[in-house]
Amino acid sequence: MAAIITLLTDFGNADYFVGAMKGVILSLSAAVRIVDITHEIPAHDIQSGAFTLLAVYKDFPAGTIHVCVVDPGVGSSRRPVVVEAGGFTFVGPDNGIFSFVIEREPSARVFHITNEKFFRQPVSNTFHGRDIFAPVAAALSNGVRPFEFGDEIKDFVRLDPISPERTPEGELEASIIHIDRFGNCVTSLTRESLQEETFARGAKLRVGVHQITSFRKFFGEGSEGELFAIWGSAGFLEIAALRDSAARILSASRGQKVKVKMQKAEDKTQK
Amino acid sequence: MAAIITLLTDFGNADYFVGAMKGVILSLSAAVRIVDITHEIPAHDIQSGAFTLLAVYKDFPAGTIHVCVVDPGVGSSRRPVVVEAGGFTFVGPDNGIFSFVIEREPSARVFHITNEKFFRQPVSNTFHGRDIFAPVAAALSNGVRPFEFGDEIKDFVRLDPISPERTPEGELEASIIHIDRFGNCVTSLTRESLQEETFARGAKLRVGVHQITSFRKFFGEGSEGELFAIWGSAGFLEIAALRDSAARILSASRGQKVKVKMQKAEDKTQK
Amino acid sequence: MAAIITLLTDFGNADYFVGAMKGVILSLSAAVRIVDITHEIPAHDIQSGAFTLLAVYKDFPAGTIHVCVVDPGVGSSRRPVVVEAGGFTFVGPDNGIFSFVIEREPSARVFHITNEKFFRQPVSNTFHGRDIFAPVAAALSNGVRPFEFGDEIKDFVRLDPISPERTPEGELEASIIHIDRFGNCVTSLTRESLQEETFARGAKLRVGVHQITSFRKFFGEGSEGELFAIWGSAGFLEIAALRDSAARILSASRGQKVKVKMQKAEDKTQK
Repeated sequence: MAAIITLLTDFGNADYFVGAMKGVILSLSAAVRIVDITHEIPAHDIQSGAFTLLAVYKDFPAGTIHVCVVDPGVGSSRRPVVVEAGGFTFVGPDNGIFSFVIEREPSARVFHITNEKFFRQPVSNTFHGRDIFAPVAAALSNGVRPFEFGDEIKDFVRLDPISPERTPEGELEASIIHIDRFGNCVTSLTRESLQEETFARGAKLRVGVHQITSFRKFFGEGSEGELFAIWGSAGFLEIAALRDSAARILSASRGQKVKVKMQKAEDKTQK
Repeated sequence: MAAIITLLTDFGNADYFVGAMKGVILSLSAAVRIVDITHEIPAHDIQSGAFTLLAVYKDFPAGTIHVCVVDPGVGSSRRPVVVEAGGFTFVGPDNGIFSFVIEREPSARVFHITNEKFFRQPVSNTFHGRDIFAPVAAALSNGVRPFEFGDEIKDFVRLDPISPERTPEGELEASIIHIDRFGNCVTSLTRESLQEETFARGAKLRVGVHQITSFRKFFGEGSEGELFAIWGSAGFLEIAALRDSAARILSASRGQKVKVKMQKAEDKTQK
Repeated sequence: MAAIITLLTDFGNADYFVGAMKGVILSLSAAVRIVDITHEIPAHDIQSGAFTLLAVYKDFPAGTIHVCVVDPGVGSSRRPVVVEAGGFTFVGPDNGIFSFVIEREPSARVFHITNEKFFRQPVSNTFHGRDIFAPVAAALSNGVRPFEFGDEIKDFVRLDPISPERTPEGELEASIIHIDRFGNCVTSLTRESLQEETFARGAKLRVGVHQITSFRKFFGEGSEGELFAIWGSAGFLEIAALRDSAARILSASRGQKVKVKMQKAEDKTQK
């Protein structure tokens, strides 16, 4: 079956950037299938790119090549890399964009791309998506192995992990890691860090001055505009509102703290 | 030839949603061709999705599978359905999004999707596009027949029909069913409900305080900013303005009434 | 290998327009590969479409068919054309959108599309993208030759060339021909019209009240928000700012003049 290359960038859909990458790929690998994840990552927002990649990479067939270009340091000394992780291959800049995937895939290996014979010549200083990452992805789709591009490295760039932290007061401190088109606020809380039952036993989420005390199984429930927590499709707890934007109601922004006040200890023993 | 699956959603192009659906489809049906219709249907706007689908479904080859996900009731008791109509298959929620197609294709059949063996597991409560509609579309592309997903139903949800109504005063009352990127206002008036000649014989369109009295064959005619009526490419009468936005000039919004004052009866007899 | 058809339009991604073109193409040419360049050219902005096409057409494999529809005169007497240039084929309206490609490819040939047997019937007056350009592109992908659509013409429409002009005072007068998503301002200055060394020898760019005196090799250098010149990936000099929008800092708009004050003549002799 034809190899699949996905594209995830902050290039937007208005410029020639995405088209140029596709042209380069198709020039080198005529049968490959190209799939857009998104090109609307906010400009230069590496963490947003890292989250989006995390939310979607596993939905593709094993062997898929994910090209991710959010690259404010293009042309500087930041390294281009190929990452092998979880049965997938990733291509992009070494600036942390693959952090969350690597956090989840402990056997990940990272290779520094140095073998210029795979580059589009001449390599510009402003568009490595076209000149390095696209042709490297095409080469991967043609069977070139990650180690053929350069040496394995261990000191690759990592973003701060997204896991919530426990405060001395026994609260969980998480954050909003993504706000989607519908205004749903994706928090960094996972099923490992928070159980649904904690809501039934009086747990509260706090975002700024707002408190969220109810948990819902799906969007259809509840009254219009009321805030509630819900397990989202990326595996994280989301703060949502029925047919309304939770982000608007909360005046929320990415990175904002979400504090979880758990039930009291005596409640626990009642369980 | 490879099957074609089209996608029409209100997911936007910024999130991982569309990428996730494509990944699921390609994981199950490696050779299928995926075509985006649009992902910019206004959030939760079922009628807008229904219109866009109506305007485009027939331009695809017979056998195409159209997946349409504008789904404010995701996770609630609204049913997932497969629709067979006019040589095409449609997959999505039973909330009226297929209404206008079914209005046009009297032999349409609707099947309630209940066979969970075709679902991505676990099924989330917030993203049936990925967990139900994408894998069902992939199964259809692999040759599974609509009735294999569940029982045929007759009580599917229908939107109000878009056909104009005749008022006691002999006027036609239509509405604006879509406003496109260029500000053209698509009305619900078709060639069946209104003839071009009626303009020549003095018919007037009224939208709020504005009157449109001229009919044009194409955009190139007329003076800058002047309002006129024109047959649009979706088969409906549109209100347009030369190199300007008719919607802006009219302060128009979707759903707004368009009244057609016809020529007097005595004029008719003169014909 | 399957033929490639690219699409470049001002249709936006919200309407049914792009989906309709793809449906028509796939109905006529089942194996063709369709690649979106962009659909976000500003409405009716022919020059912007012409620039974007220029920046990207050569990145595709030889033989690629580029369909470009920015078409404010649709339905009027403007002609539909097929252009053969540089090993590629182009399809779209004769309104100048192919000007910059033709400027670069002296052996270009332009054919007036008149052979209606290749059109989708009935041809609407408002959507030649679907009714003429898409089916003509599909026919090209099936092996129909450009001259089979109609006669060659020499009086095709040309935009003003984008090359800079030399003023009597010995300055170069260029302009901003594109502003990208990151706010980088693409000027009409090429390596032929301006050498990097001229900056080292005291050349200055002037845009309105702003002066740019430094040249950078890549984005990573410099201090936040400082304006500098850099060779962009489309082959033109760009005005950029480190992690900031040069367009915002300059209050720049497309078409704005960029004046280059060169080093004095005596400096030249010192070289």
